[in-house]
Amino acid sequence: MSDQPTARRRAGDAVVSDARLNNSKTKSQYQPYRDANWGFINHWYPALFSDELPEDEVKGIQICGVPIVLRRANGKVHALKDQCLHRGVRLSEKPMCFNKSTISCWYHGFTYDLESGNLVTIVANPDDKLIGTTGITTYPIHEVAGLIFVFVREDDFPDADVPPLAHDLPLRFPENSERYPHPLWPAVPSLLDDNAVALGIHRTGYTDWRIACENGIDNAHLLLHQDNSIIHALEWVLPLGLLPQDDCIAVLEEEGGPKGMLQWLSTDKWKPVLENKELGLKVPGINGRPYRTSITLPGLVAVENWPGEHMTQLEWFVPITDDTHEYWEVIVRVCNTPEELEHHKYRYERVYKPLALHGFNDCDIYAREAMQNFYADGTGWDEEQMVSTDISPITWRKVASRWNRGIAKPGRGVAGARKDISLRFKDTADGRRPGYEVIKIQED
Amino acid sequence: MSDQPTARRRAGDAVVSDARLNNSKTKSQYQPYRDANWGFINHWYPALFSDELPEDEVKGIQICGVPIVLRRANGKVHALKDQCLHRGVRLSEKPMCFNKSTISCWYHGFTYDLESGNLVTIVANPDDKLIGTTGITTYPIHEVAGLIFVFVREDDFPDADVPPLAHDLPLRFPENSERYPHPLWPAVPSLLDDNAVALGIHRTGYTDWRIACENGIDNAHLLLHQDNSIIHALEWVLPLGLLPQDDCIAVLEEEGGPKGMLQWLSTDKWKPVLENKELGLKVPGINGRPYRTSITLPGLVAVENWPGEHMTQLEWFVPITDDTHEYWEVIVRVCNTPEELEHHKYRYERVYKPLALHGFNDCDIYAREAMQNFYADGTGWDEEQMVSTDISPITWRKVASRWNRGIAKPGRGVAGARKDISLRFKDTADGRRPGYEVIKIQED
Amino acid sequence: MSDQPTARRRAGDAVVSDARLNNSKTKSQYQPYRDANWGFINHWYPALFSDELPEDEVKGIQICGVPIVLRRANGKVHALKDQCLHRGVRLSEKPMCFNKSTISCWYHGFTYDLESGNLVTIVANPDDKLIGTTGITTYPIHEVAGLIFVFVREDDFPDADVPPLAHDLPLRFPENSERYPHPLWPAVPSLLDDNAVALGIHRTGYTDWRIACENGIDNAHLLLHQDNSIIHALEWVLPLGLLPQDDCIAVLEEEGGPKGMLQWLSTDKWKPVLENKELGLKVPGINGRPYRTSITLPGLVAVENWPGEHMTQLEWFVPITDDTHEYWEVIVRVCNTPEELEHHKYRYERVYKPLALHGFNDCDIYAREAMQNFYADGTGWDEEQMVSTDISPITWRKVASRWNRGIAKPGRGVAGARKDISLRFKDTADGRRPGYEVIKIQED
Repeated sequence: MSDQPTARRRAGDAVVSDARLNNSKTKSQYQPYRDANWGFINHWYPALFSDELPEDEVKGIQICGVPIVLRRANGKVHALKDQCLHRGVRLSEKPMCFNKSTISCWYHGFTYDLESGNLVTIVANPDDKLIGTTGITTYPIHEVAGLIFVFVREDDFPDADVPPLAHDLPLRFPENSERYPHPLWPAVPSLLDDNAVALGIHRTGYTDWRIACENGIDNAHLLLHQDNSIIHALEWVLPLGLLPQDDCIAVLEEEGGPKGMLQWLSTDKWKPVLENKELGLKVPGINGRPYRTSITLPGLVAVENWPGEHMTQLEWFVPITDDTHEYWEVIVRVCNTPEELEHHKYRYERVYKPLALHGFNDCDIYAREAMQNFYADGTGWDEEQMVSTDISPITWRKVASRWNRGIAKPGRGVAGARKDISLRFKDTADGRRPGYEVIKIQED
Repeated sequence: MSDQPTARRRAGDAVVSDARLNNSKTKSQYQPYRDANWGFINHWYPALFSDELPEDEVKGIQICGVPIVLRRANGKVHALKDQCLHRGVRLSEKPMCFNKSTISCWYHGFTYDLESGNLVTIVANPDDKLIGTTGITTYPIHEVAGLIFVFVREDDFPDADVPPLAHDLPLRFPENSERYPHPLWPAVPSLLDDNAVALGIHRTGYTDWRIACENGIDNAHLLLHQDNSIIHALEWVLPLGLLPQDDCIAVLEEEGGPKGMLQWLSTDKWKPVLENKELGLKVPGINGRPYRTSITLPGLVAVENWPGEHMTQLEWFVPITDDTHEYWEVIVRVCNTPEELEHHKYRYERVYKPLALHGFNDCDIYAREAMQNFYADGTGWDEEQMVSTDISPITWRKVASRWNRGIAKPGRGVAGARKDISLRFKDTADGRRPGYEVIKIQED
Repeated sequence: MSDQPTARRRAGDAVVSDARLNNSKTKSQYQPYRDANWGFINHWYPALFSDELPEDEVKGIQICGVPIVLRRANGKVHALKDQCLHRGVRLSEKPMCFNKSTISCWYHGFTYDLESGNLVTIVANPDDKLIGTTGITTYPIHEVAGLIFVFVREDDFPDADVPPLAHDLPLRFPENSERYPHPLWPAVPSLLDDNAVALGIHRTGYTDWRIACENGIDNAHLLLHQDNSIIHALEWVLPLGLLPQDDCIAVLEEEGGPKGMLQWLSTDKWKPVLENKELGLKVPGINGRPYRTSITLPGLVAVENWPGEHMTQLEWFVPITDDTHEYWEVIVRVCNTPEELEHHKYRYERVYKPLALHGFNDCDIYAREAMQNFYADGTGWDEEQMVSTDISPITWRKVASRWNRGIAKPGRGVAGARKDISLRFKDTADGRRPGYEVIKIQED
């Protein structure tokens, strides 16, 4: 044993080093973020890829504790609260639609107008006095580039206040290139560009959405990715790390635009670390390209020109409950001709999906899971000891605290509101994990 | 999006339509029912089919949070609290009986008299001063028609006050035919009739017992069953629904008899709905038969002349914990000759069991599970919006609140008292669901 | 039903017989033990067998809610808190060591000195101001006879106060033979003897560590073992039980030595019971040997000369969480020559491991699991009704309450601190039980 006195972390007392970045003053500036275990509400989130919802298909999902049913009718996607106001079953478990303008509950036939959410009839009870007096919340939809976005809102959030989707997407280029110039790099496409195509996957992550999100903008975890095939396929040599310099982060909080932050990596704003003398580590000479990442409320990470030039990788960490999120990995590219599209899809299947969305990002997934116990009972938020490179998550926490449109209330009467019910143990015994999409009822 | 203002349901604020049936005054009339998540105690419940407990067999079950061990000795069934008063293990996990009048604990030999429950000796400690001063609760048994009933009681409920089984069974016919005439139908048999036979199954349901029970008397969910084979095998054409008229429900609350309610369906008291103009639905002409259902405390649904004439289907929703119940489906028929019995059993195996107990009722099971998240954290009880057809569950809630013999206390020191213990996760990882019967210890 | 009045156990009211051994005065004497659901801290516990940790291997375990990472470097084992102070991930999930004197976190490269636990560098951030100001707790190690012991301590427990391992091991013989003579038996070896060898197994038990521990010193559960092969291989005939006489237990609480108790079984201090007249049971004549058991803080059961002469079986019940423990079964023998060792290992594999550690002790495991529901919510501690033979656990509870070096605080930010998180359900759905050792990250 050593004789040196050690400043040890104490359980419960939170005696952490004063040298850490996130002191108590800093913490108080992101209290709203700490409160948002069920996510930020009144924001646009991706719900499904367009091709997951063909005409007349009905699917149920859950975002920020809100159950949502989606139906496509006459090409248009509609979204409503997926909880019948009668006995609370999810309409999506066993879809029943008698026409193109309504959705009915399979249990007792409560029928809702797709546009208004109003209770327009009850199959078996057409004259009940409840009809016309009540309804379920509807959620605005914006479908673009192969993605269906839903505006997940509180029940009393007015239609008139729904912002455009662009407010919850990254800054667009080249229209912002002058204000936020990138030294060496082509302007990247936006989902809103003409002929933009979104290819990607989504899957459930079993952690708090926030620690997943923070992993996405973390510039200090290059170690984790040092052995990834895509890095070596590109013949890149990574630095040990990146150190923040002055102006390393641009905070985006202009009126009428997306709120978040932008960071230029591997430029003079984030200086590469090539040596660690203490450990005798030295990188002979890095090979790679500067890149830029951003994060936009409600929690959308964008990596420009990754995993290739003229494209951008978007990642959402869509809160399902306080301890699950749907992890979206989407590559956006503009394909102006069928040939371009064909070629892009081929590379997506052969390169980007296996090496970037899986190989590279799979490492991020296990890192997030590794943090979950620490944060799940609040310990991590109290006791983490941050360092200078953590300016990224700390800045994000503050921006998110200032600009979110609402903190989601803990889910009530939905999956995950109580985690210990026997129905969940039954499903688990049957090999079924908690998930994002409603599993439809199978009749034998 | 629609311009129409919508009365949306708000999470947490319980702003539900005033047009709904169950306003706050109504709710206050069934508060005891709302409190009974662990069931009603001091009632008769089915425990096992007779043939599940042969001579000398020992089995453990749990009802209303009470662990119960059953043993048959000299033909007679005995029931005791299945929790050794020493260290709390279940006697049924590894049955040990040294004679016909006692049961001993396999762990330290605490030995209880089957009749009195008294601690009569300890195998290894025959002179301990504890002997003769204490004991475990016993539960009265009534075995009839192939079913073993147990009177699940609080520890201090006196033997003298135990009511006859008939008080917790449906009204009998024809003796009540004059008071409760059925227009078109033969009087149905009772379990208590001579030569009555009970054939059926039981299985665990992963929901609150109450929402399961209410599904059983719900006259508004015909939609759910419209595609069931048994309906079409009978060439029935169902109406869209049934609307309650005056006197649609007879409340049964006479002194010295079963407490519950009775409803004549498809008669003029429950008018068939043949059309829903809003949806353009029309049933050309129904084909089927009026039938009658009832519910009796502690939660026994009876459907007369279903799934065939001269029989009655009984269904119990026996609370195991606050979120599991044992679902019993039993068909009662009188078979006066061996030939009649043979023929009935044949039809039971070929028709009633696959098409009624499974095909038809399996749909009810998934409907109950679909409600569980909504009710599991209390949300459903606060926010459900009931309509006129829900007069059935509402009336039942009130009757049950007035006449139950006791609200079971939450289970203590038993399976399901804590749902999150590691032992449960171990069992679940091994593919084992929470259940009703004790699984016996396997020595390798 | 019987007419006899019965003193039944009431749920919740704790009306238990006054004739029981553990009245409320007794209970107050072991309140600290009742508080120790997460175990006693500041004690020596076995961590791994030596051969489970070869040179350069890194493994993670959890004891008393404390995550611990072990690494062997230059032959010496080091132990540190297995929770990076940055974002709380476990170092052991994906071991990364750049040299023989440090361990680095695989996520961001926080690097800790193996001896002091100090943060000596950060791979990617070598000049951060946090470096040198903080560190993680280290845990003293004592490796002997093939076992690695770790002193699990609170973060502020001073190195100077760490007692020798001998204080947490059983009394040694023959040096204590005069003070604690055994009538008929050879002095047994200690782990600290020259040429002592420890052979054995460890596995996770899914119960409170205390009820597991008490099962180990329980002299009244001979019934459980009556059919075990090892008993019959030895041609033993067991008595029905053993009754405590005067001086049946020697309490060990001398300054500077192990704290616990010692009991001579099958001698005149624990009189064999040969008959139970009430049940008509009679053992014609016992055949077997007197033996002696002890329990030493923090919960180490020793059975002398079991499962053979000149050896001792040690059993630890190492708390992982409040409802899991690592069950250690170790046979200690002195083997002075390679031939002796060879022969002992052969008998260990053919006889002791299958018949004693498994056959015999497997029965104890299911008995412990059978108690878990009763104790998991506190019910058992309130309502158990103890008898004279329970003087063993009662005495142990009191000794442990007087002499433990600290009650572990409930785990924070670690596995099992919250039991209901979705990550746990995911793992369970994948067939993975909660365990003791960290499962390393698999990269595909």
